Amino acid sequence: MAFEGQVITCKAAVAYEPNKPLVIEDVQVAPPQAGEVRIKILYTALCHTDAYTWSGKDPEGLFPCILGHEAAGIVESVGEGVTEVQPGDHVIPCYQAECKECKFCKSGKTNLCGKVRAATGVGVMMSDRKSRFSVNGTPIYHFMGTSTFSQYTVVHDVSVAKIDPKAPLEKVCLLGCGVPTGLGAVWNTAKVEAGSIVAVFGLGTVGLAVAEGAKTAGASRIIGIDLDSKKFDIAKNFGVTEFVNPKDHDKPIQEVIVGLTDGGVDYSFECIGNVSVMRAALECCHKGWGTSVIVGVAASGQEISTRPFQLVTGRVWKGTAFGGFKSRSQVPWLVEKYMKKEIKVDEYISHNMTLGEINKAFDLMHEGGCLRCVLDVHT
Amino acid sequence: MAFEGQVITCKAAVAYEPNKPLVIEDVQVAPPQAGEVRIKILYTALCHTDAYTWSGKDPEGLFPCILGHEAAGIVESVGEGVTEVQPGDHVIPCYQAECKECKFCKSGKTNLCGKVRAATGVGVMMSDRKSRFSVNGTPIYHFMGTSTFSQYTVVHDVSVAKIDPKAPLEKVCLLGCGVPTGLGAVWNTAKVEAGSIVAVFGLGTVGLAVAEGAKTAGASRIIGIDLDSKKFDIAKNFGVTEFVNPKDHDKPIQEVIVGLTDGGVDYSFECIGNVSVMRAALECCHKGWGTSVIVGVAASGQEISTRPFQLVTGRVWKGTAFGGFKSRSQVPWLVEKYMKKEIKVDEYISHNMTLGEINKAFDLMHEGGCLRCVLDVHT
Ligand SMILES: NC(=O)c1ccc[n+]([C@@H]2O[C@H](COP(=O)([O-])OP(=O)(O)OC[C@H]3O[C@@H](n4cnc5c(N)ncnc54)[C@H](O)[C@@H]3O)[C@@H](O)[C@H]2O)c1
Ligand SMILES: NC(=O)c1ccc[n+]([C@@H]2O[C@H](COP(=O)([O-])OP(=O)(O)OC[C@H]3O[C@@H](n4cnc5c(N)ncnc54)[C@H](O)[C@@H]3O)[C@@H](O)[C@H]2O)c1
Ligand SMILES: [Zn+2]
Ligand SMILES: [Zn+2]
Ligand SMILES: [Zn+2]
Ligand SMILES: [Zn+2]
Repeated sequence: MAFEGQVITCKAAVAYEPNKPLVIEDVQVAPPQAGEVRIKILYTALCHTDAYTWSGKDPEGLFPCILGHEAAGIVESVGEGVTEVQPGDHVIPCYQAECKECKFCKSGKTNLCGKVRAATGVGVMMSDRKSRFSVNGTPIYHFMGTSTFSQYTVVHDVSVAKIDPKAPLEKVCLLGCGVPTGLGAVWNTAKVEAGSIVAVFGLGTVGLAVAEGAKTAGASRIIGIDLDSKKFDIAKNFGVTEFVNPKDHDKPIQEVIVGLTDGGVDYSFECIGNVSVMRAALECCHKGWGTSVIVGVAASGQEISTRPFQLVTGRVWKGTAFGGFKSRSQVPWLVEKYMKKEIKVDEYISHNMTLGEINKAFDLMHEGGCLRCVLDVHT
Repeated sequence: MAFEGQVITCKAAVAYEPNKPLVIEDVQVAPPQAGEVRIKILYTALCHTDAYTWSGKDPEGLFPCILGHEAAGIVESVGEGVTEVQPGDHVIPCYQAECKECKFCKSGKTNLCGKVRAATGVGVMMSDRKSRFSVNGTPIYHFMGTSTFSQYTVVHDVSVAKIDPKAPLEKVCLLGCGVPTGLGAVWNTAKVEAGSIVAVFGLGTVGLAVAEGAKTAGASRIIGIDLDSKKFDIAKNFGVTEFVNPKDHDKPIQEVIVGLTDGGVDYSFECIGNVSVMRAALECCHKGWGTSVIVGVAASGQEISTRPFQLVTGRVWKGTAFGGFKSRSQVPWLVEKYMKKEIKVDEYISHNMTLGEINKAFDLMHEGGCLRCVLDVHT
């Protein structure tokens, strides 16, 4: 608590410019203001959204910034009026806030809280529209309301999920993005029933979590589709029962899947971010009821398309953000499920590194042999 | 019963070639074979699907054929094994069959019965893959499994809804297509809840039936969108509370609707068949939960598109065929609702003519002052 009310100087990975290596830098982290929480980040993983913004392709990306949004840590101090967490609490910062008051939260129909979006979307905090990060007086933008590639970060109180202090932070940091996204796509968005036939396009962390979710939902067949045949061995452990590599076929992949399934699958999930695959995922669904969920995030400006007849004949096209989970209410529940060994987490961690090795970690991600790489932020 | 087992020669409107006037012709109608029903059609309305196939734009259209699919009549005779209807029964022929046995019917998730599709899709009957219509020995194709522009037609038994004999056939013929499509889009496909804000694009018969369905579902606002401002007066009677003409605005219509509704509508319905409007209908939906249903039928080869972000942020894109109603089970129920004055039918009939005036009736439809024109088939 030594820092309470004071600026903390600590290490962070700063993205000064698109596509230039992140710089491990001494940053100043201002104390939390009213409704804010300063968190000591212990572990953070890397996700594709970080890489996407870093690449410069995200038109809403702001530089310089501190990326990172899949992490776990301990509350260092809280601003005025913060009642739901206190220093010492173990937490997962959530890019998807949950205020329980806005029309989105109150609708009961969505997890897309609108409370702090106007600020987090432009890299600042709500109260004064300013950043809490700076390097020698130059402000550094926040990212997704989380900025976890830093030893300390400041987030809005509506973005903090308080979790069981016994949970290993070096594992449950993954419950900040990819794993819940996949599980929730199945459980909340598609609501897959027992006996369903499921197709999963893309067998990275998100696709594997979809497979795991479908398995626990009792799916009878889980067809995994990936261009990288090496993914199949690991995918078996997550419930995938059949594997299709589009490279092995001349026909469009949707026709291949329709042929394998007597007319199409009950549910499909796009976990890549490729608009052509999104179309294939819709079109491999069974006439009359097949539902396709878009989970992957496509590059800005890209569009999906299909013949409207696909929908008129009963297919449904949906999407999901953070798997439809309400962050503050449900991330702690996911942590409990992990503690009771009802969901996997450890199995998605393919690499462990330190914050200082973050550029190498991003290289690994692009090479494809990597599911999740967890960084120890304080070593 | 005089004709039972014999060929009937009667009047029908034959489409010999795309876009050439229909010819009122003496046609021979063969007796029903096993599983078939011959119906004396008393009244038929015209629908856009007839006009579309007639225009030659439908790549699956076959000529010469007898169009028509929104009608009512009386069973003249039945083929072997037909148990659910008998001569004298009042019926509505249904282009969407319901066999109660195929995987579609048994799924409980769709009304798209697959039993006779392979035959009705190519203008013939299942048992021998032949037509029951001919003119001087030349076969004339069936259309949509109904071909109601004829004084007598033959349909599959799974395509016949037996209705209350007290129902006025000159009215309830409309329950064969457009009105159920609109009502069911709201009740079955979207499942609009009380208090919802609804947008209806296109205020023809289908759009007005959507409005009526939304009103009975308790929608709080029903916004009607049409290029033809004359539609508004009549639309009020069907529940439309606000009217927007895209011609009065410079902004894209989706932005106009989002502005009128503090972020978008809860449900939208495209009842035109225009792929750009389908996109607008999706994009005027509220983030987090807005659901858009495609009801209109676009021309072959046209595609819908949008940014996947629209779906990732919680909008849902669906479609409907015959409003999701199971034809044999539910058309009789709709007739009952009409008899109890719980749904409108008479109000959709803007014109009455005879079969001999069918070409004039199609002209009227294209002029736009027409909702439904009902033809007396035997005068
Ligand atoms: N909607 C959300 O809330 C949300 C949250 C987290 C991640 N995401 C997105 O989910 C997607 C997947 O994330 P991830 O971490 O699992 O990624 P990943 O890169 O680890 O996995 C993607 C997989 O897709 C495979 N692939 C690539 N192109 C393919 C193709 N054309 N056909 C078949 N397979 C192909 C790759 O070989 C890889 O195995 C990304 O777009 C990410 O941005 C969305
Ligand atoms: N899915 C199904 O099962 C099913 C069943 C029946 C009919 N349909 C389809 O529903 C559609 C509507 O049928 P209908 O009989 O009501 O047609 P209609 O022509 O009577 O009505 C269409 C209305 O849309 C308006 N319109 C045209 N272009 C517009 C635009 N760009 N913006 C706003 N309004 C516009 C017209 O002025 C008209 O009032 C047709 O495409 C028809 O084929 C589908
Ligand atoms: Zn992520
Ligand atoms: Zn909220
Ligand atoms: Zn019709
Ligand atoms: Zn059937």
